[in-house]
Amino acid sequence: MSYPQETFFRTSLISGSLLARRREVVSSNTLLYQLDVLKKTGRYDAFKLQWHPSYSDPPDVWPIPNHLFWDSDVAKWIEGACYFLREQPDPKIHVAVKELVQMIQSAQQPDGYINIHYTVVEPGKRFTNLRDFHELYNAGHLIEAALAHNHLYHNDDLLGPMLKYVDLLCRIFGPGENQVHGYPGHPEIELALLRLYHRTKDRKHLDLATYFITERGNPSGDHGKHYYVAEAERRNESPYTRPRYWADSDALWYYQSQEPLVEQQTIQGHSVRAMYLLTAAADLVRSGKSPDARLKSGVSRLWDNMVDCKMYLTGGIGAMKQWEGFGLDYFLPQGTDEGGCYAETCAAIGVMMLAERILQYDLDRRFSDVMELCLYNAVLTAMSHNGTKFTYVNQLASSDSDLSKREEWFTCACCPPNMLRLLGQVGGYICTQQKSGPEGPPSTQVNVHLYVSSRCEFETGHGQQVVLTQKTNWPWSGQVEFNLCTKSDQVSLALRIPGWTTSWKMTPSPPTTTLRNGYLILPPTYLSSHPSFTLDIPIAPRLVSPHPYTNQPILALSRGPIIYCVEDTDNTWVQDHFKSVQLDPHCQVVEKTVTDPKTGDTYVSLTVINGGASVMKPQDVHASPSVEVTGLDEKLQRDVRTIEELNFVPYYFRANRGGSGQMRVGLRRWNKASMGRIDR
Amino acid sequence: MSYPQETFFRTSLISGSLLARRREVVSSNTLLYQLDVLKKTGRYDAFKLQWHPSYSDPPDVWPIPNHLFWDSDVAKWIEGACYFLREQPDPKIHVAVKELVQMIQSAQQPDGYINIHYTVVEPGKRFTNLRDFHELYNAGHLIEAALAHNHLYHNDDLLGPMLKYVDLLCRIFGPGENQVHGYPGHPEIELALLRLYHRTKDRKHLDLATYFITERGNPSGDHGKHYYVAEAERRNESPYTRPRYWADSDALWYYQSQEPLVEQQTIQGHSVRAMYLLTAAADLVRSGKSPDARLKSGVSRLWDNMVDCKMYLTGGIGAMKQWEGFGLDYFLPQGTDEGGCYAETCAAIGVMMLAERILQYDLDRRFSDVMELCLYNAVLTAMSHNGTKFTYVNQLASSDSDLSKREEWFTCACCPPNMLRLLGQVGGYICTQQKSGPEGPPSTQVNVHLYVSSRCEFETGHGQQVVLTQKTNWPWSGQVEFNLCTKSDQVSLALRIPGWTTSWKMTPSPPTTTLRNGYLILPPTYLSSHPSFTLDIPIAPRLVSPHPYTNQPILALSRGPIIYCVEDTDNTWVQDHFKSVQLDPHCQVVEKTVTDPKTGDTYVSLTVINGGASVMKPQDVHASPSVEVTGLDEKLQRDVRTIEELNFVPYYFRANRGGSGQMRVGLRRWNKASMGRIDR
Repeated sequence: MSYPQETFFRTSLISGSLLARRREVVSSNTLLYQLDVLKKTGRYDAFKLQWHPSYSDPPDVWPIPNHLFWDSDVAKWIEGACYFLREQPDPKIHVAVKELVQMIQSAQQPDGYINIHYTVVEPGKRFTNLRDFHELYNAGHLIEAALAHNHLYHNDDLLGPMLKYVDLLCRIFGPGENQVHGYPGHPEIELALLRLYHRTKDRKHLDLATYFITERGNPSGDHGKHYYVAEAERRNESPYTRPRYWADSDALWYYQSQEPLVEQQTIQGHSVRAMYLLTAAADLVRSGKSPDARLKSGVSRLWDNMVDCKMYLTGGIGAMKQWEGFGLDYFLPQGTDEGGCYAETCAAIGVMMLAERILQYDLDRRFSDVMELCLYNAVLTAMSHNGTKFTYVNQLASSDSDLSKREEWFTCACCPPNMLRLLGQVGGYICTQQKSGPEGPPSTQVNVHLYVSSRCEFETGHGQQVVLTQKTNWPWSGQVEFNLCTKSDQVSLALRIPGWTTSWKMTPSPPTTTLRNGYLILPPTYLSSHPSFTLDIPIAPRLVSPHPYTNQPILALSRGPIIYCVEDTDNTWVQDHFKSVQLDPHCQVVEKTVTDPKTGDTYVSLTVINGGASVMKPQDVHASPSVEVTGLDEKLQRDVRTIEELNFVPYYFRANRGGSGQMRVGLRRWNKASMGRIDR
Repeated sequence: MSYPQETFFRTSLISGSLLARRREVVSSNTLLYQLDVLKKTGRYDAFKLQWHPSYSDPPDVWPIPNHLFWDSDVAKWIEGACYFLREQPDPKIHVAVKELVQMIQSAQQPDGYINIHYTVVEPGKRFTNLRDFHELYNAGHLIEAALAHNHLYHNDDLLGPMLKYVDLLCRIFGPGENQVHGYPGHPEIELALLRLYHRTKDRKHLDLATYFITERGNPSGDHGKHYYVAEAERRNESPYTRPRYWADSDALWYYQSQEPLVEQQTIQGHSVRAMYLLTAAADLVRSGKSPDARLKSGVSRLWDNMVDCKMYLTGGIGAMKQWEGFGLDYFLPQGTDEGGCYAETCAAIGVMMLAERILQYDLDRRFSDVMELCLYNAVLTAMSHNGTKFTYVNQLASSDSDLSKREEWFTCACCPPNMLRLLGQVGGYICTQQKSGPEGPPSTQVNVHLYVSSRCEFETGHGQQVVLTQKTNWPWSGQVEFNLCTKSDQVSLALRIPGWTTSWKMTPSPPTTTLRNGYLILPPTYLSSHPSFTLDIPIAPRLVSPHPYTNQPILALSRGPIIYCVEDTDNTWVQDHFKSVQLDPHCQVVEKTVTDPKTGDTYVSLTVINGGASVMKPQDVHASPSVEVTGLDEKLQRDVRTIEELNFVPYYFRANRGGSGQMRVGLRRWNKASMGRIDR
């Protein structure tokens, strides 16, 4: 059971934590809210294969019909619902899942094919536009839904039809002479097929996933041509007819198909596609069944490039709106009016998925630190406190054209049900299990990546039960009380010591305090004598900044894994989206535990006091097009209004309490000490 | 005679100055070099209307055929040649001009039409793609060539055919029911027609220019539709077929035709098009014949937006490569690897043209300061010291993919002949004449915008000669000796005191030292008693920076109007395009007059000495994706290598002496005082 989609079944979150609270909200509000939206928008009934008026609408983004991923919207909701139904049976949800599954069954064509668009709107055109029409992507999400459904209901009502569909796909796609040598423009089916293989052990499921991953980017796979080039020619597509998301006349990089994955040096293109592809690639590496040994270093290289050069302070990825994806190395403006910022919700979820897969074979906190960063910031910020409003884009600074706010739904509605299924299975991200340690005798090592009040169950190789309980007020406090309950004396634990902490304490003292790739290893001897122990990680406000090469001369406040922002609700004087607000690196920060009266959410707020922040007056700076440094320095030091108290809330909590939508994470760096002193 | 294309005929540059030197090089090398290229590439013979093999080539940038502006390449060379032939007759150039004019004559169709593409390649398709096919742009350049030709030769060999062509255009385009309600995708003909009107006083020339300017952006000009929308429909163009330079599915802003000019709030789109359009608009304002009083404030608003928010330290404009134009306000990265930088040569020339036109009705140094900035930096940098290599893009920092270097020619060759004609007429930019002062009795005021060793002749309203002589080593020294020779007692002078100087001295003392919009006005009384006088403006190295909102935490060295850069030739240790080099705002700068042994050019070089510059080591900064400020500050202050001597040369002089093409204008700001002191 190595997938969080399955391990979470043996995990319970103890009520009271931020994660537990968000899960409860999904269970009580979001599932029903989204079901209602699915019904209102026509998605719910779409598998009945009747014509829907919106099928005639011109596409918002050519050539993608607006309903193209309705299959996946439904599939993701089913998948998420199945995760929540385990703990909290709800007859309405149960009935809807059942009805949807019946519709999908009856939507299946005699040969196994399942797809709304190509059955209702363009029959006869199946698999003619793998590049842009999300046919295989939809199939992937249906497979994931089927796995979740099967796991909950232990029947084949959905898995059966999907296996039949996959059989068809295995016949159609592959290296054979009469097979199609293509692969999906939007990866997703690859990771689904690998999970399917883990369940079925049917070699052809592995083979098809492997084929999709390794054939991708082959410059001559289709009779000497790149598959997408040959396919476009078959569609008689003019080379000058270009989707809006192509920034170039040749934008194969948008699909991560400009060259084989193992040869790609930097991460490019659509960020969600990149994450789903790399998650599958990492899972193939983990399985030990990759036909190309370079895949492991390829995944690692692209991860490093992403995290070191293309990731925001919040864990968000993707600066570029046009292609919803990665820009240049170190090009990370905070908002639209500074050059862009996308940081799509699904992409941040994808980073978590990828990190989790890599952690299965490379236990290193550089993956889990980022996984936690994404969870508490770029991901959690995407849903309102009550679970009924969502974001798609998660900028680090608002602007007049892009205010900080959430929406009820989207035409392209990938993100809201993705939140649903991520929060459904989030318990599976807390720990992973290694059945044998890297050295030494066969044993079980439980790797703890996230600190959350929870109860996680495992089984040793010899079938003995292991129960790990955590009690903590994380992320607000850094004290975690553990209890390990097992009869086995072969269990070790690895506890992540986050990269952002400079100290930590373990009580009782562990045999060694040397970390292995950022993890503290507790051997069976320690655990046998100390089944209960406490980890203390000091959590205090810290100032962080992005890499100097980003040309972002900014500071941001963080505390533990939480990144903070300023909002107009708490700083009502703001008029320019905090663009002129400055923070002194020596500023004094006061923290306070707050229970928000409106939302009931409890969090730690931060306030910069004693004039540690200020407003510069750049509107008075006339730089046409340059300004003398002497004069500018004098001006910027003289014309400053200090702010007595600047109030911060967690970034994930933004846009929950009204206000005008002005928000910012990174604030200009300001050397207060030199204020009034003009010493050039 | 209010156009520099004509006033320069009465101006001589005295040998020895930088501008005179560059003009001499054009006269002796560039004219013949470019003539040779015109011949080799097929441009020279193109007006013979024979098929050229390159006419079959697929366009580099759809839908523009590669030869589309060959007409204008030839026209601009003729125009430039005519400017230089006045002073320096050259039989070879003379013969070529003559032959080209004969070819153009014989290329004229019976109805007056002249255009290579639509006569040879696509006959029958005239005026079917005003949006992208530069038909009217070519006509504009041919009109300008004809004006220059007529001015030099005093015959109608070229002007005659062009007047016939313009007659045809006046019949085709206009508001009449049977006329075409269109306007050129690339403005140029507007400013040419206004100059033509100034010569011919033929009202229909003014009317056509006015129509093109005011009809542009009309949302319903073509039977209720925007002209370009209706035109695309007539071509049966798919809405999804998009030129590579469209960043959007609806990119009318690329052509400055998203709305009427008078309603545009910010400057957008292709920067050369914008400059040519605004130059024409400013000339219409100057003429007092604009039908819309809002045009003056419209031009002013767009100028301010451009200079305050979208102009580089060098005077270059346009950050965005895709549409060769303007990005967001304050989005001004220095090079490709930081988000872009275009700063096309023709656009900087266009800024000079626009500034010169505005100065005719609004004497304010905010225009002339920018005009001079462009001339000595963004423009002069575009040609090698010997006049045979050119740039198209003028970035402020090199990168591995875009080294700092010049090319021999371009497929789209607008820039090299534009340098030719600008340098040909540059004498006309030194002074302008106002026949009556803003107040007081009728008189002549000569406005001196540029300081160059020169002799400029004018005539008063009563026909009396005025000769203004300047002797100076500008831009290297700020002393300018003037002599005004005239029998009139009605002449006043306005001398620009540059915005970058904090002091200046006039000998003998003037009656008032109060400036009027940055100009010192010397009244006739002063000039009658002091026909010789001296202006002293201290010229010393200065540090400048862009507006804080650019998020460019950089300093650049300047001296007088010259902006400096660092090159690898003088700083051979550099490996990262000076990306990690830092400059202390308190640095000591040493200046030295240098005569470069390779090029023979004399200039003032600058050197930052005594460790006022340093190299940070960001390669050691691991920010995944953030870094703790405390640690980073310590690291960046500790891990610094000071540079004993950092050598700067004028930006215009870059890429003249070999080297590997590494160059940068703005260097990271660094507080040396805090080095080694970690006091957070």
